Amino acid sequence: MTRVRIDLFSSLDGYTSKSDDSSENPMGEDWGALTTAYAATRTFREQVLGDPTSGTTGVDDSYAAAHFVGVGAEIMGAAMFGLHTFPDDPEWKGWWGDQPPFGTPVYVLTHTAPRPPIPMQGGTTFHFRSTAIEDVLAEATEAAGGLDVRVGGGISTSRAFLRAGLVDDLHVTIAPVVLDRGTRLWEDLRGLELTHAVRTEVAESGTIHITFTRQATA
Amino acid sequence: MTRVRIDLFSSLDGYTSKSDDSSENPMGEDWGALTTAYAATRTFREQVLGDPTSGTTGVDDSYAAAHFVGVGAEIMGAAMFGLHTFPDDPEWKGWWGDQPPFGTPVYVLTHTAPRPPIPMQGGTTFHFRSTAIEDVLAEATEAAGGLDVRVGGGISTSRAFLRAGLVDDLHVTIAPVVLDRGTRLWEDLRGLELTHAVRTEVAESGTIHITFTRQATA
Repeated sequence: MTRVRIDLFSSLDGYTSKSDDSSENPMGEDWGALTTAYAATRTFREQVLGDPTSGTTGVDDSYAAAHFVGVGAEIMGAAMFGLHTFPDDPEWKGWWGDQPPFGTPVYVLTHTAPRPPIPMQGGTTFHFRSTAIEDVLAEATEAAGGLDVRVGGGISTSRAFLRAGLVDDLHVTIAPVVLDRGTRLWEDLRGLELTHAVRTEVAESGTIHITFTRQATA
Repeated sequence: MTRVRIDLFSSLDGYTSKSDDSSENPMGEDWGALTTAYAATRTFREQVLGDPTSGTTGVDDSYAAAHFVGVGAEIMGAAMFGLHTFPDDPEWKGWWGDQPPFGTPVYVLTHTAPRPPIPMQGGTTFHFRSTAIEDVLAEATEAAGGLDVRVGGGISTSRAFLRAGLVDDLHVTIAPVVLDRGTRLWEDLRGLELTHAVRTEVAESGTIHITFTRQATA
């Protein structure tokens, strides 16, 4: 059965990096501090940097690897696609390169008039949708063919799905740092531990991994 | 060498329970959710309930036990002593009972005119000070005779010492719950991991323990 999954990064004080939409720091100034352990994993190095010969292989890596397994469709916000970078160029295909690392249908949420789908190399096709997130999720679930739907971000898109109670599996990587600024990841999610089972684990790096898992209904 | 220690409780989203100063919930409505694992420890049951025959003996208990070891003097805010409950009664000796669980000098911070010291049974003497926290800390350090000074709370007093950079050892117990309300424990503490070594550990209960340790100077 398809499950809806999200992976997020947080500081000890519950902040995730605020995107500043600048070309120097598209993920925000604090992104590096939140993702140090993830960037050191073998999975990241292989999947993102194309180097399968280095990286950590412990707890951090097992979570990183799980992120890439079993996904049949992706949902992301317009900013994560890069839609705002060249809003008036219909030829702009986002900033994920010629062969984006998804290999599935990707549903891009937008408030502007939807564009036609963009098929890319490697099995990724970008679809643009301006309907309610519940409707987009229904379409993505259909497209996933029994595999999972991953909500890939950014944080405002992820939080919209969380607030609406649509997420079955949430994994948060907590870096042992205090940011005191950014976007508040947990806001409006009081009592999430009542609807989802919580599991906590510390990696060799000192990074904390928390998973919230909604019990599958019969 | 004397070290300055604080133990705090937090939620995943960085909130500690907000005292509501009501007689039903002096520590705030969410205190129970933050302290479930602590209240289940053998140390808590023995030290606070007087029952040494039950309780957990794992990771949660080892941190609970450490809280009570090696303390030579205590500092607390006026509310934690109970000073505001009967502000006009000079005979009021706080709400810790005839034999408070400190057994050391306890320095109570107050903005009102200091009272004379109150000696209690069991080695506790309450002293009232309205001077700067640095001055009170100097006096407490002298009184501790080489043991540690513990800042016992409440949260505003603890945060005042943290913001001033006066704390050598901070231990935070993070309950795997999302509160989305309360007092923000980490506010103004950005970069605490740069001045203190961080250690993270998960207990059998799923509770996360984080310690910040300032390296002793030679």
